Amino acid sequence: SAASASASATTTTSPATSPSADALEQVAPGLARYQREDLEEGLWARPGLAARDRHLVTLAHLVGSGQTQHLTTYLEDALDAGLTPAEVSETVTHLAFYSGWENAASAVGPLQEVFAARGVSAQDLPAASPDLLPLDQAAEAARAEQVQSTYGEVSQGVVDSTGEVLFRDLWLRPDLAPRDRSLVTVTALVSSGQVQQIPFHLGRAMDNGLTEAEVGETMHQLAFYAGWPKVFSAMPTVGEVLAARR
Amino acid sequence: SAASASASATTTTSPATSPSADALEQVAPGLARYQREDLEEGLWARPGLAARDRHLVTLAHLVGSGQTQHLTTYLEDALDAGLTPAEVSETVTHLAFYSGWENAASAVGPLQEVFAARGVSAQDLPAASPDLLPLDQAAEAARAEQVQSTYGEVSQGVVDSTGEVLFRDLWLRPDLAPRDRSLVTVTALVSSGQVQQIPFHLGRAMDNGLTEAEVGETMHQLAFYAGWPKVFSAMPTVGEVLAARR
Amino acid sequence: SAASASASATTTTSPATSPSADALEQVAPGLARYQREDLEEGLWARPGLAARDRHLVTLAHLVGSGQTQHLTTYLEDALDAGLTPAEVSETVTHLAFYSGWENAASAVGPLQEVFAARGVSAQDLPAASPDLLPLDQAAEAARAEQVQSTYGEVSQGVVDSTGEVLFRDLWLRPDLAPRDRSLVTVTALVSSGQVQQIPFHLGRAMDNGLTEAEVGETMHQLAFYAGWPKVFSAMPTVGEVLAARR
Repeated sequence: SAASASASATTTTSPATSPSADALEQVAPGLARYQREDLEEGLWARPGLAARDRHLVTLAHLVGSGQTQHLTTYLEDALDAGLTPAEVSETVTHLAFYSGWENAASAVGPLQEVFAARGVSAQDLPAASPDLLPLDQAAEAARAEQVQSTYGEVSQGVVDSTGEVLFRDLWLRPDLAPRDRSLVTVTALVSSGQVQQIPFHLGRAMDNGLTEAEVGETMHQLAFYAGWPKVFSAMPTVGEVLAARR
Repeated sequence: SAASASASATTTTSPATSPSADALEQVAPGLARYQREDLEEGLWARPGLAARDRHLVTLAHLVGSGQTQHLTTYLEDALDAGLTPAEVSETVTHLAFYSGWENAASAVGPLQEVFAARGVSAQDLPAASPDLLPLDQAAEAARAEQVQSTYGEVSQGVVDSTGEVLFRDLWLRPDLAPRDRSLVTVTALVSSGQVQQIPFHLGRAMDNGLTEAEVGETMHQLAFYAGWPKVFSAMPTVGEVLAARR
Repeated sequence: SAASASASATTTTSPATSPSADALEQVAPGLARYQREDLEEGLWARPGLAARDRHLVTLAHLVGSGQTQHLTTYLEDALDAGLTPAEVSETVTHLAFYSGWENAASAVGPLQEVFAARGVSAQDLPAASPDLLPLDQAAEAARAEQVQSTYGEVSQGVVDSTGEVLFRDLWLRPDLAPRDRSLVTVTALVSSGQVQQIPFHLGRAMDNGLTEAEVGETMHQLAFYAGWPKVFSAMPTVGEVLAARR
């Protein structure tokens, strides 16, 4: 059965399986069974969240928490599942701000390796300074005012960079859809235990098109990849956001 | 004195010393002294928590937080201190769910290396699907109902997997005692700052046989290995659990 | 422009740029632009916090969160910017206690490499047991009493080690100024999401000489390096500490 799991892992729709089923079998037979039954044949095959989105969530968790040991395999699987090189590139760029610069920087080496093997070149990637998506002026004014009043007394530098670099630049880059940026951001928040920041970004995610069913399965995906405790700590707040929008 | 510390580190009862005392002396003489006086001759020699349990806690913290650089040394020391290969294998399997899949997966390589060097083979390890320990039906029904009512509106998938994969499978695997699974779980919670999840799991740990003295020294062990701030943030909640049971 | 960014990165006042601008350009052109415009020419050039302090904060975040992939480059840059080998050595030693032993231990290899290349030897480093700074007896008595009453019922071991190892030893080591130890500690707290521990240590930092402007720019530096969510979660508490002292 290790061999069949290994074989199934080479198809483009199957989930990331790292380390190999054989390696798992050798040291943790239980873990190998969970990988096969509960990840490959279970979680990744469930409805409610597209396989492509499950890869986006998993990748965002791994890059955002600096877990690079098997990252090339996860990147290969994510590209096979339909994420474009441009989307992966922008996901890493987005996480520099939502998970810390060096977590993104630590993904650059694996990304170089995978892109080189597939012949991904500059023309496949986002421009450094593309034409930006239109800004929702009213929503941005409300956000800016809230951040100014909450944080301005502590650090005007943070307030200014939040507007200039994040909300009037990063979020408007066109090569990752706002809904996907939100999914990456919510993932980063759950993955790093930043529950307080969930209401704003989960509300924004749903404004950007994420559905209730997708939110639920994102939590399920993260239970396996970020661990049960972080998801259990996040879910009451997630529930409040969902309830308030019903 | 670096030489004597190095020598003592090769006995089977001494604690994990990574990196070597010599390396520490070269770049951080203070840290080398703390390792000798406060870890090796201090913390690891204290009563209240068995050396074997201190290794279990330390290993659970390191695997659960993805700190793999010196993991082979810690694994060697843990096995020398009396943890069995089957217990170590199950600890990693358990942490896949309580610290996130990839943290467990990142320990597989070091585990392969250490098991191979000691000739650990399949028959020394837990079966993929062993006969499970008996389930406490009443406690499980209460847990299931609480999780359903708290999280069911957010993600039925999480609720279902919590029951099917964790509490009616993982926790009942016989090759790591429930008390040890609880110790690993509480360690993972303190180590990742998930204080909200401590009451349930610490109560369960004590139901499973962990004593007050062991809880206190687990916090002490984690102060050094997970850092003072995480332990200080966890201890008020730990104290409430202890007080409520007195 | 990648070339000019690369060139500017070799001067002693420029910030840490890892990975290289060329590598970033190849996989994430947007991230390369942010590194150039918003880090190198932006954040690191701002007033309010000295470049040397920005390196101390950045280094403390990276070591404290185990992000070692580009650590030698950051160490080189920090030494070029004026941190002494003794200060860097003590920073790593300090973080063993405030970010967990193994995060400090994981920095020892990179530190050996950088010190060896620069011919740093034992006489450039702090003694294992130097003459300690004088202890503020009244402040220490108040701290000890508060810790005893809060945590004594849970773990007398933690209480004792907090006094003996941390506040009557580590904090009094003379090769890193108390103000710098506080800056390293506050960084570790924000970086690991330990907001509850901020009031005590931020108050102590300001007692030790850290200014309001420096606190604000430390938050700004950490927004980029530890990520926006951790800084947003910390800033309300930081603001309360600042307000209470005005």
